[in-house]
Amino acid sequence: MNTIKLKSMLQQFFNEDIGDGDLSSETIFSATEQGAFTFYAKQDGIFCGKQIIEIGFPLLDPSLQVTVFKEDGDTLQKGDSIARIEGSLRSLLTGERVILNCIQRMSGIATQAYEAVQLTKGTKTKICDTRKTIPGLRMLDKYAVRTGGAFNHRSGLYDAIMLKDNHISFAGSIAKAVQTARAKIGHTVKIEVEIETKEQLLEAVNAGADIIMFDNRTPEEIADWLPLVPPHIATEASGGITLDNLQSYAQIGVEWISLGALTHSVTALDISALVEQKGAVTYGTR
Amino acid sequence: MNTIKLKSMLQQFFNEDIGDGDLSSETIFSATEQGAFTFYAKQDGIFCGKQIIEIGFPLLDPSLQVTVFKEDGDTLQKGDSIARIEGSLRSLLTGERVILNCIQRMSGIATQAYEAVQLTKGTKTKICDTRKTIPGLRMLDKYAVRTGGAFNHRSGLYDAIMLKDNHISFAGSIAKAVQTARAKIGHTVKIEVEIETKEQLLEAVNAGADIIMFDNRTPEEIADWLPLVPPHIATEASGGITLDNLQSYAQIGVEWISLGALTHSVTALDISALVEQKGAVTYGTR
Amino acid sequence: MNTIKLKSMLQQFFNEDIGDGDLSSETIFSATEQGAFTFYAKQDGIFCGKQIIEIGFPLLDPSLQVTVFKEDGDTLQKGDSIARIEGSLRSLLTGERVILNCIQRMSGIATQAYEAVQLTKGTKTKICDTRKTIPGLRMLDKYAVRTGGAFNHRSGLYDAIMLKDNHISFAGSIAKAVQTARAKIGHTVKIEVEIETKEQLLEAVNAGADIIMFDNRTPEEIADWLPLVPPHIATEASGGITLDNLQSYAQIGVEWISLGALTHSVTALDISALVEQKGAVTYGTR
Amino acid sequence: MNTIKLKSMLQQFFNEDIGDGDLSSETIFSATEQGAFTFYAKQDGIFCGKQIIEIGFPLLDPSLQVTVFKEDGDTLQKGDSIARIEGSLRSLLTGERVILNCIQRMSGIATQAYEAVQLTKGTKTKICDTRKTIPGLRMLDKYAVRTGGAFNHRSGLYDAIMLKDNHISFAGSIAKAVQTARAKIGHTVKIEVEIETKEQLLEAVNAGADIIMFDNRTPEEIADWLPLVPPHIATEASGGITLDNLQSYAQIGVEWISLGALTHSVTALDISALVEQKGAVTYGTR
Amino acid sequence: MNTIKLKSMLQQFFNEDIGDGDLSSETIFSATEQGAFTFYAKQDGIFCGKQIIEIGFPLLDPSLQVTVFKEDGDTLQKGDSIARIEGSLRSLLTGERVILNCIQRMSGIATQAYEAVQLTKGTKTKICDTRKTIPGLRMLDKYAVRTGGAFNHRSGLYDAIMLKDNHISFAGSIAKAVQTARAKIGHTVKIEVEIETKEQLLEAVNAGADIIMFDNRTPEEIADWLPLVPPHIATEASGGITLDNLQSYAQIGVEWISLGALTHSVTALDISALVEQKGAVTYGTR
Amino acid sequence: MNTIKLKSMLQQFFNEDIGDGDLSSETIFSATEQGAFTFYAKQDGIFCGKQIIEIGFPLLDPSLQVTVFKEDGDTLQKGDSIARIEGSLRSLLTGERVILNCIQRMSGIATQAYEAVQLTKGTKTKICDTRKTIPGLRMLDKYAVRTGGAFNHRSGLYDAIMLKDNHISFAGSIAKAVQTARAKIGHTVKIEVEIETKEQLLEAVNAGADIIMFDNRTPEEIADWLPLVPPHIATEASGGITLDNLQSYAQIGVEWISLGALTHSVTALDISALVEQKGAVTYGTR
Repeated sequence: MNTIKLKSMLQQFFNEDIGDGDLSSETIFSATEQGAFTFYAKQDGIFCGKQIIEIGFPLLDPSLQVTVFKEDGDTLQKGDSIARIEGSLRSLLTGERVILNCIQRMSGIATQAYEAVQLTKGTKTKICDTRKTIPGLRMLDKYAVRTGGAFNHRSGLYDAIMLKDNHISFAGSIAKAVQTARAKIGHTVKIEVEIETKEQLLEAVNAGADIIMFDNRTPEEIADWLPLVPPHIATEASGGITLDNLQSYAQIGVEWISLGALTHSVTALDISALVEQKGAVTYGTR
Repeated sequence: MNTIKLKSMLQQFFNEDIGDGDLSSETIFSATEQGAFTFYAKQDGIFCGKQIIEIGFPLLDPSLQVTVFKEDGDTLQKGDSIARIEGSLRSLLTGERVILNCIQRMSGIATQAYEAVQLTKGTKTKICDTRKTIPGLRMLDKYAVRTGGAFNHRSGLYDAIMLKDNHISFAGSIAKAVQTARAKIGHTVKIEVEIETKEQLLEAVNAGADIIMFDNRTPEEIADWLPLVPPHIATEASGGITLDNLQSYAQIGVEWISLGALTHSVTALDISALVEQKGAVTYGTR
Repeated sequence: MNTIKLKSMLQQFFNEDIGDGDLSSETIFSATEQGAFTFYAKQDGIFCGKQIIEIGFPLLDPSLQVTVFKEDGDTLQKGDSIARIEGSLRSLLTGERVILNCIQRMSGIATQAYEAVQLTKGTKTKICDTRKTIPGLRMLDKYAVRTGGAFNHRSGLYDAIMLKDNHISFAGSIAKAVQTARAKIGHTVKIEVEIETKEQLLEAVNAGADIIMFDNRTPEEIADWLPLVPPHIATEASGGITLDNLQSYAQIGVEWISLGALTHSVTALDISALVEQKGAVTYGTR
Repeated sequence: MNTIKLKSMLQQFFNEDIGDGDLSSETIFSATEQGAFTFYAKQDGIFCGKQIIEIGFPLLDPSLQVTVFKEDGDTLQKGDSIARIEGSLRSLLTGERVILNCIQRMSGIATQAYEAVQLTKGTKTKICDTRKTIPGLRMLDKYAVRTGGAFNHRSGLYDAIMLKDNHISFAGSIAKAVQTARAKIGHTVKIEVEIETKEQLLEAVNAGADIIMFDNRTPEEIADWLPLVPPHIATEASGGITLDNLQSYAQIGVEWISLGALTHSVTALDISALVEQKGAVTYGTR
Repeated sequence: MNTIKLKSMLQQFFNEDIGDGDLSSETIFSATEQGAFTFYAKQDGIFCGKQIIEIGFPLLDPSLQVTVFKEDGDTLQKGDSIARIEGSLRSLLTGERVILNCIQRMSGIATQAYEAVQLTKGTKTKICDTRKTIPGLRMLDKYAVRTGGAFNHRSGLYDAIMLKDNHISFAGSIAKAVQTARAKIGHTVKIEVEIETKEQLLEAVNAGADIIMFDNRTPEEIADWLPLVPPHIATEASGGITLDNLQSYAQIGVEWISLGALTHSVTALDISALVEQKGAVTYGTR
Repeated sequence: MNTIKLKSMLQQFFNEDIGDGDLSSETIFSATEQGAFTFYAKQDGIFCGKQIIEIGFPLLDPSLQVTVFKEDGDTLQKGDSIARIEGSLRSLLTGERVILNCIQRMSGIATQAYEAVQLTKGTKTKICDTRKTIPGLRMLDKYAVRTGGAFNHRSGLYDAIMLKDNHISFAGSIAKAVQTARAKIGHTVKIEVEIETKEQLLEAVNAGADIIMFDNRTPEEIADWLPLVPPHIATEASGGITLDNLQSYAQIGVEWISLGALTHSVTALDISALVEQKGAVTYGTR
């Protein structure tokens, strides 16, 4: 990840939550009171967000001492300690929720990506994401997908060409669309073509597509058509694939499966802050 | 919503996806080719995001013609048309995914909020959100909660005081924490206190809390303690409450139930763009 | 205050004054010449702006050594030293005016707020500010008000409801306006109603207002009407109140008096930089 | 003024006040309710801020109809109508305070500048401002000074050289400081030297200063020293000059008098919004 | 190009030049004086920058009427009219230099790219750019390269992998570097390897590089090694290639030649504004 | 230079090149691998950009150790070491190109400015730049001009008045334009007038211009007219002057010569990064 960009994102996130000040911690505590808390897992999963913690808290207060016990991609078991932050009580309490909101989402994505990857074990299929990410969070969402062991599809509209039905219809044909695009791009850009029929597949192969995407096809259709794709062209299945039916696609030998739900419908991993103090334990924040 | 802020958010979201240009639509189509597409629902739910569509597309291209058929809060049935956008093919295709990413999330939130509200029918309980929103999206997330018929808890650390276990422990007692806070704030700010025992409840009431929050308590405990709260103090249940056990809390008469999952674990509502054109139909995008 | 936001404000303020460079100090001095100066009070007042000095100078030059001798809220007497900054001559001279512009205004506000608070001694009345702050400076203006011992009214349009004549007229009645608002907001938001007649007062009380604001009323009118307000509703006097007539309002027992002039018409407190050096003394800068 | 910069300033100002939304007008009124109000003067003065009104309201809502009846620099008499804005009630009420905060300050500055200029009538002295402006508002503050008939001193550290006591002390001598600066700057930059004694004056003149500034000198001293300044060098009096003693300085023939208080201690001109409606009249807002 | 990004770039460029105002045009002309000028070519070349003119001037002043007579990529002959802008004199004169600075550079790049492309006529070689662009201008620089008929190499560090000597040395070997990279990236990203010897070439081919870059090799070396590269791997020559020796590289059949000088050492194309008026002609501006 | 502004420029430049991450160095190297490289000159010239290196790399990674061996303005000979950076391999390789793009341009400008200055040796003429800088880079471009020993003309439209043919034509006459401008500006702003005929020269002198600019005149014309300009008015030659004909202008005694090509048509100075490692040497990057 680009840490310069990450810092400005975290500053924006803190400003969103803090506004002109934290009414609670600034009124209750003085600037000099000290304390510590520990982030710990409240359920099993894959951790993601080490840099969020290490870079985020010091942005808020450079005097905080931050120790992260887990690496991105590590397995979390319920009760595991993730990180300990020590310093100004005000800063701890002011920063807690924003950091948790980030790492709970990122760990949720990594956990789901990891589960999808496990389902492809023993096959040649790799899992990748899509552009169905939360606006403003693509860098974090895609990093979390990699942390879970899956791969990134294109980053945006700017780094690969993807010709979908609508592009193709307007261009007149797959052959024409591919050739028009190819004539304008450099040698570092790949062209992916979305196909729905065997005829489209053959046209895309002949037009020189770099990647064939089987859009909303059954495993049987794809299995039937795969032999028509020469080895230097990558294959991808997409559309309507979930953790439930993922294995039926992986078993037929398609190289890539892209899953929009990895990032558009995320269940946050439950992580909380446990305050170190005279026996007091706090679970969760608003 | 603040439309000045909304515009700058949408500009940021478009820049994230487009970067220096849309390689696909800019290479395949000329600047003058025209077309239209319709956003339609692929599943039932509550629509949210009219302003996203009406403000977003013209930011990309002021010559686009945008018509939204649904109001925020309207019920969507699978197949319903939501909006039609007509104009430059390049602009349509470049803008589609960012707009969908926004309105699918917002409609997903509104739908879940609506479902929660339905479960409280016949009770005096109202549903509200928390600060567990996606960083950078709080304005949109909280708007979507309202669109679904639920309410907003505080917007951030800056607009209400919430004294949680950790605040209280460090301050020494609920009474001391409430009084310290009260002495420093104006008359427009409310103080909410999180309690876990009957003793804490009584201390918070006596200290002058404006809102009592029952944190991770069973419906039975809350039902038992509610009579101890005088009528001018609001009551709220929070922690571990889901759509599954929501009704057991609503039936006991607590005024507010806050649900973190409304915004931290969202399932996007499925919405797609259907291109108007010689019979071609496209389902979804990457 | 939110220090992340404060840093970006100070960066903006420095950029406004420095532009592409300080023609004077960059041409006269080398990058290595060192010196020191002291900020001192040229008149009596209340100091406000410690963080401005401590955070501001290091933004310009992290190698500067900054010591602030006063705490926010401390009394200043003419001639008192406030802070000493030592390091690169270029940085000292480049940063001086921006920092002074900030702390002179903030100390001016704190001083005036302090004076207003003194005038309420022995009464139950508290002084608060309004939204009549300098655009872009609200966080600093409101902090300075608190530093002077007064309180903050709402921060902006986003954290409390205030129904004024115009809102009420269009809604049809106070009762309708209050009820319409109440039905849409959560339990952390208060509703204040501005009233000008006894009838309006009674309507607002009955409609469930949380705060009653007597707008441009005489002390006699307010004294007459106060008994009609139940104890759980806060009372506020506003409009045409200055340091001259403040006591006549405070003596009648209204809880809050809001003063627009605290922030819209500020007299800067006179503070200067005294260079440490062979007997040379400099008073003021342009 | 630079209107591109003005627009982004106004957007920042609106965001400061509106945050994520205007709780009052958004809950009380629908998006379609219409109305109008008039800004009018509540005291005599000089108007400044036409562009604020004309550019500001449409940023908030392009459908508002804005008519400004006064030009910048026009005389205002108590009761004069300044502008009328018609359109969405929500937008009118949301934008009112930010616009008033700007134009009340700008008109306050213009009025005070105008008064200072009047005091120099019949003399060759011109009034100018300083860098003692409110951080973030320099463009507006300096525009208001010009509107009142006075002139701008340098805009910032970047557009002229000003050698003050401290610069000179460190450089060793006025002669050395002026020569060092002169050797590094182009022909479009002027050098001003602050002097406190006749010896310093002569040294500055001989060193080739373009402007001599008499710092904290009495009118008698300046009158005594003025004949020593050759005609191609401009003269300026500064320090401790107020509207009360301004004329004593103007009468001695110094060309420029700079007044810090024009911008650092401003009394806002009282301007209010009068809602057009069934007889209802509203005076002022919070 | 991304027009949302282009607009914010142009706003930044205008702010850089205008600061708080254009002292010349704002003092000499009133807000209502009207005029027109024409941009015309003062030397032959390829035009680039239509959107700069069409989007730029209206940002400054929406009432300006802008007509561009040339399309990007059109040939310019000395004396050709490029565009005519009519409206407020102030706006015309304020905007002229920024727009010229942009289009003179872009046309200079397009012209040089066009010349390079002409030198490859009759060969299968295509010309592309590098990342040696002016910081902040990459989108414009790369657009101008395309306008001249050449192609874009990767946009930045984020959209393709390029393994250079230093990457390879640290990784231990080309094979190891390529495999390590390949194992972590998705199917839309290509890997280019920079080679200097025949052994490196063979290693890169066997490791599965997508593109082979001959770094600082003579045409003879490349001609000798090209037959070793299988047809599905792209070939590129780079390093020390200029318009003078370009043809010797193109003639040997390498597919791509990348030229850093296209963007790092640009000669602006001479374009001026000719004011329409009583016979007065102005050549150039400062 | 303003280092606060410089930091934000460098952050913007890094973000442009890095986007969401450096695919090459992040996939090939771990976060802990260390190394070092040296920037060295590949051709003779004048170095400019010390702050770019010293401030830039730590922005990317505060743990990098940066040593710059040259001062701005130092002579570089082919092969000279300029700076050494040591630390994380990822950070070194990610930052290299952006830093080189900056310092190669700045050193190219400084070198050309230095050459122009050498051509004026023995004359009283000084060399200055124009506003024909690269949009977004003016602060750096103008700093590089000073580093080469030349001077800066005005920084932008905001810090000096320049009346060109078009201004004058519309105003009616030079006299009227100068007087109109003079009446509105303070004493720190100079007025420059562009003239093309002897009559215009005399008119400008009489109107009180501070600087006369001979626009596109031959050395003979200027030599003929110079005696008509009184000594307190500066003289400048501009238009069509290059390194080739510069001396013919310098010899006639004009005080200033402004050269647009110093910044609008720059040849980057060739500087490369040499990796320290087992004998491996890398020349250049893409």
